[in-house]
Amino acid sequence: MTRKIGVIGMGSVGSTVAHYIVSGGFADDLVLIDVNEKKVKADALDFEDAMANLPTHTNIAVNDYSELADADIVISAVGKLQLQRDNPSNDRFIEYPFTQKAAAAVAGKIKDSGFNGILIVITNPVDAITSIYQAVTGLPKNHVIGTGTLLDSSRMKRAVAKKLHIDPRSVSGYNLVEHGNSQFTAWSTVRVLGKPITELADKEGIDLDKIDEDARMGGFVVFRGKGYTNYAIASAAVRLADVVLNDARTELPVSNYREELGAYLSYPAIVGRDGIVQQLQLDLTDEELDKLQNCATIINEKFEESKAKDFAVE
Amino acid sequence: MTRKIGVIGMGSVGSTVAHYIVSGGFADDLVLIDVNEKKVKADALDFEDAMANLPTHTNIAVNDYSELADADIVISAVGKLQLQRDNPSNDRFIEYPFTQKAAAAVAGKIKDSGFNGILIVITNPVDAITSIYQAVTGLPKNHVIGTGTLLDSSRMKRAVAKKLHIDPRSVSGYNLVEHGNSQFTAWSTVRVLGKPITELADKEGIDLDKIDEDARMGGFVVFRGKGYTNYAIASAAVRLADVVLNDARTELPVSNYREELGAYLSYPAIVGRDGIVQQLQLDLTDEELDKLQNCATIINEKFEESKAKDFAVE
Amino acid sequence: MTRKIGVIGMGSVGSTVAHYIVSGGFADDLVLIDVNEKKVKADALDFEDAMANLPTHTNIAVNDYSELADADIVISAVGKLQLQRDNPSNDRFIEYPFTQKAAAAVAGKIKDSGFNGILIVITNPVDAITSIYQAVTGLPKNHVIGTGTLLDSSRMKRAVAKKLHIDPRSVSGYNLVEHGNSQFTAWSTVRVLGKPITELADKEGIDLDKIDEDARMGGFVVFRGKGYTNYAIASAAVRLADVVLNDARTELPVSNYREELGAYLSYPAIVGRDGIVQQLQLDLTDEELDKLQNCATIINEKFEESKAKDFAVE
Amino acid sequence: MTRKIGVIGMGSVGSTVAHYIVSGGFADDLVLIDVNEKKVKADALDFEDAMANLPTHTNIAVNDYSELADADIVISAVGKLQLQRDNPSNDRFIEYPFTQKAAAAVAGKIKDSGFNGILIVITNPVDAITSIYQAVTGLPKNHVIGTGTLLDSSRMKRAVAKKLHIDPRSVSGYNLVEHGNSQFTAWSTVRVLGKPITELADKEGIDLDKIDEDARMGGFVVFRGKGYTNYAIASAAVRLADVVLNDARTELPVSNYREELGAYLSYPAIVGRDGIVQQLQLDLTDEELDKLQNCATIINEKFEESKAKDFAVE
Repeated sequence: MTRKIGVIGMGSVGSTVAHYIVSGGFADDLVLIDVNEKKVKADALDFEDAMANLPTHTNIAVNDYSELADADIVISAVGKLQLQRDNPSNDRFIEYPFTQKAAAAVAGKIKDSGFNGILIVITNPVDAITSIYQAVTGLPKNHVIGTGTLLDSSRMKRAVAKKLHIDPRSVSGYNLVEHGNSQFTAWSTVRVLGKPITELADKEGIDLDKIDEDARMGGFVVFRGKGYTNYAIASAAVRLADVVLNDARTELPVSNYREELGAYLSYPAIVGRDGIVQQLQLDLTDEELDKLQNCATIINEKFEESKAKDFAVE
Repeated sequence: MTRKIGVIGMGSVGSTVAHYIVSGGFADDLVLIDVNEKKVKADALDFEDAMANLPTHTNIAVNDYSELADADIVISAVGKLQLQRDNPSNDRFIEYPFTQKAAAAVAGKIKDSGFNGILIVITNPVDAITSIYQAVTGLPKNHVIGTGTLLDSSRMKRAVAKKLHIDPRSVSGYNLVEHGNSQFTAWSTVRVLGKPITELADKEGIDLDKIDEDARMGGFVVFRGKGYTNYAIASAAVRLADVVLNDARTELPVSNYREELGAYLSYPAIVGRDGIVQQLQLDLTDEELDKLQNCATIINEKFEESKAKDFAVE
Repeated sequence: MTRKIGVIGMGSVGSTVAHYIVSGGFADDLVLIDVNEKKVKADALDFEDAMANLPTHTNIAVNDYSELADADIVISAVGKLQLQRDNPSNDRFIEYPFTQKAAAAVAGKIKDSGFNGILIVITNPVDAITSIYQAVTGLPKNHVIGTGTLLDSSRMKRAVAKKLHIDPRSVSGYNLVEHGNSQFTAWSTVRVLGKPITELADKEGIDLDKIDEDARMGGFVVFRGKGYTNYAIASAAVRLADVVLNDARTELPVSNYREELGAYLSYPAIVGRDGIVQQLQLDLTDEELDKLQNCATIINEKFEESKAKDFAVE
Repeated sequence: MTRKIGVIGMGSVGSTVAHYIVSGGFADDLVLIDVNEKKVKADALDFEDAMANLPTHTNIAVNDYSELADADIVISAVGKLQLQRDNPSNDRFIEYPFTQKAAAAVAGKIKDSGFNGILIVITNPVDAITSIYQAVTGLPKNHVIGTGTLLDSSRMKRAVAKKLHIDPRSVSGYNLVEHGNSQFTAWSTVRVLGKPITELADKEGIDLDKIDEDARMGGFVVFRGKGYTNYAIASAAVRLADVVLNDARTELPVSNYREELGAYLSYPAIVGRDGIVQQLQLDLTDEELDKLQNCATIINEKFEESKAKDFAVE
């Protein structure tokens, strides 16, 4: 009788996710949670003041973890962007010392609420943090999903589309593995104008390395320009949530647990009401497979490190 | 063949307006303008990075006034919130020394672009600034509209609806005159549950003064909680724009020029593709009429003052 | 985790309801039921063939009552329009001999499925049929709702709006009691341009009787023109369903059980997830109250008659 | 300032197209035209009666060709389904003797109106009829587009998706050439689960011929089940129209004029505000190229035949 979504962390990302949910009518009940009570109450009131002018209605609850017990989806947008702002390295692991603890704490509260829906993680570094959320909540691995390279793939599509002057939705293919610096565009998977892009690139002199750089660094361009990124990640997260609610069984490159690599990392999967319902097996090139393995190792090390030191997992 | 909207001023309000336009598919072409080029380019890129995950497509141009020549609607969200943040007085005229000059300058550029669509003004103090925009652009008075108390009316509806535990869209009635401190809820116009609210209030002991205060101060509660207000005003502005594009001829309490009062102020009007297409004549109480006249005088003085000193109108 | 809607009766109304649900994304799971298996399967396949070109996904099940067990809403669009087509009397009771039996049979199957959500009835004569559905299913009275004069009110709004050249959504007020020939526009409730319409009508010579006739006969004009009516009723029914799913607590003139009149009839109520959550008490004129009472009597007699003869209620 | 769409032919397809436009808010102004004036007026009134319950407003004009002068898009849904119903052959050319004349007549009136937007043709046999519309109106070839195999491709995607239990939007690839019996799925273009479907089919024993048959015959299954098909074609046509209005530059398999084949036939193209803005060059197999050439020849012969006999082209 309801689509109930919780959003935890009402910074620039979480509040934009909530705005898109409210203005687009993606939920019937929305639970907003933040440690800054003044901020989250201000956002909630602002949304409620919007509703007389919206075609759809959303009921909003604030800072009540017990409301998550019957939520369908919880989205974690916890973060501390100041750590990124203070740092010139363009490395999402800068936030890790903070977010690993914050995520473990939040995950504990989610678990205590009795939540047993699908948990969507935006918090960076997303793959390691998704692991933490899964470990602490004890939810099935296929019920905990990171937005991962769904965002980077859309940046790659934007870059390719702009170069060819076409709709980004008419570009297919994926950025893989880490929503972070070891990520890469798997060019062998990218198709456009009815052809593999590698073929087009050869013929028409398109510089794929430049597009790859553009996709990987796009987030930092936005970040340096305004001190945060929010619109693209909100679209990615809400699309993922909607696919789950619809049980659409859509193929999306999101961070999911790959047994054979022993890690959460971004790889296309079929997503539905039961979370990750099928995992794809791409025919990658040897070079792409090497990158994949290296990246999985890095993510795993980070996760193991944090597991040892910063949060308790039975 | 197109719905083309320009948004000028990409602060917290303007960028949220733009986000709602992009995510809701309210325009085909969008022109974003801001003096902070890094910020507006970051927002534009962020929107483009969202598009692979959106059901609708929007073409975006940045910082090019000439693009406004064939725009259908321009929305002014120019402002300097720091002035509000530095000031404890809850008075929107705090921004006036800055915004009157900024608006006159922007209006000049809009005029030079050849724009001849509908101009929607959010910039505060909205009634005086709407006058300035009209005077400088020379657009017909019914083609320049301030969002005015459309926002305050939705805050009043939220407050009434919460008290009665009903949908804010099931409350009718208006806040009038100034989107500022002299505004008031015209309780004689408010109806709910099939009755005038004044009748219900008497019977069931509902404190209308408290609700009025809540509506008038709601924006400042949000403002003090997060340093800006954006979601409710974005819904109001985009709804107004959409009503114009649809030629829906919807009744909305917005800031429009009332000949008999010689001022822009908020009063319900029928809004369509030709802007303000009809003005209502409410049966207000004497007390309400007094408030209306006083408020018109205040707005007019402010406008005349700025006209004399701060911008050139032939 | 889901919005699940069942539609029973896939004639011109039911299939249009289903189309609006699918194309507008109002449900995640949709159950379509009709005695004409070829027809309902053809519609289901047609919807599935649409989905690659839609922004939203809907899962469809066909002719399986057991799927209703966990549905949130069931919409009854059962009917036999041929009875109307063969008859020049413009009387919705023409269908009653057929629909009372059909409704009782369908209601029995709904009950057997274990359904315990909100039941929305479109089938005509809607007030009497809503009574039958409630009696046979044994669902709480506030969980069985007829679309009633929500449709007639929108026809009245269209007629008023056209006369005044404004948006029908800017007309407030209700048609009451029976979605049938004894219905009437309660002009004392209709407001437009900030005034009671009775006041405007006097001043500007608007003929309310003509508009009333237009609203009451509008459906038959459409019916005679194409042999059925479907678009307006589909909008009304889906809006009602969405208000329930959103728990929006919206005021709507729908057929609900009025204890003091002992009958289902259309009268504005607040509608939310728990069905009818509050009933309005209008200040009607004496003439309107007389009409209300007469109509309630007629509806009740019809229902009692059918109860005695055509279906078994313990 | 407007998105204005004309729909000509208000049978089961045209009226469903119009309903999707109205309920989805895809146009601001809508012009409905049909030789059966009672029917088109009934539909228009039915839409207007819906509007009080819709979130969006659409202005409707009826049977006035002069309204097309400034329309952005005209959609031809002219047809005579009775010819199909009377005929067991599953051949869309059954309608040709009627539709070629009707299309030529309508095209003449469109031309006389001064229309110079994008013309979208649904009328069957769609490729030959699109040729006629282009020839008679004299519009640029890239401004006249048939829905073609956009529909058949979505049927193919549905069939593939159902087999694999995934979202049809996660299947890419095309049905080509004729929206008719000589069409075929170009399996070399179909990809799913990150692989060419031909590879998956081999491994997992998926019978592509069966899916191809299912896609090609899907329309007739629906047709035999209810006497018409409307929902899937409406989604395809409105999506195409929206892509044009948005200037989205989306890749779609639609009927467009291929110079090298001298015919209108379905082949993927990039579609935007200027109609067909780029044509793809697929790497088809030799077998697929043969089918393509044969089909082009058939379409051309039909068109030339009708050109000689049934309508005057200078």
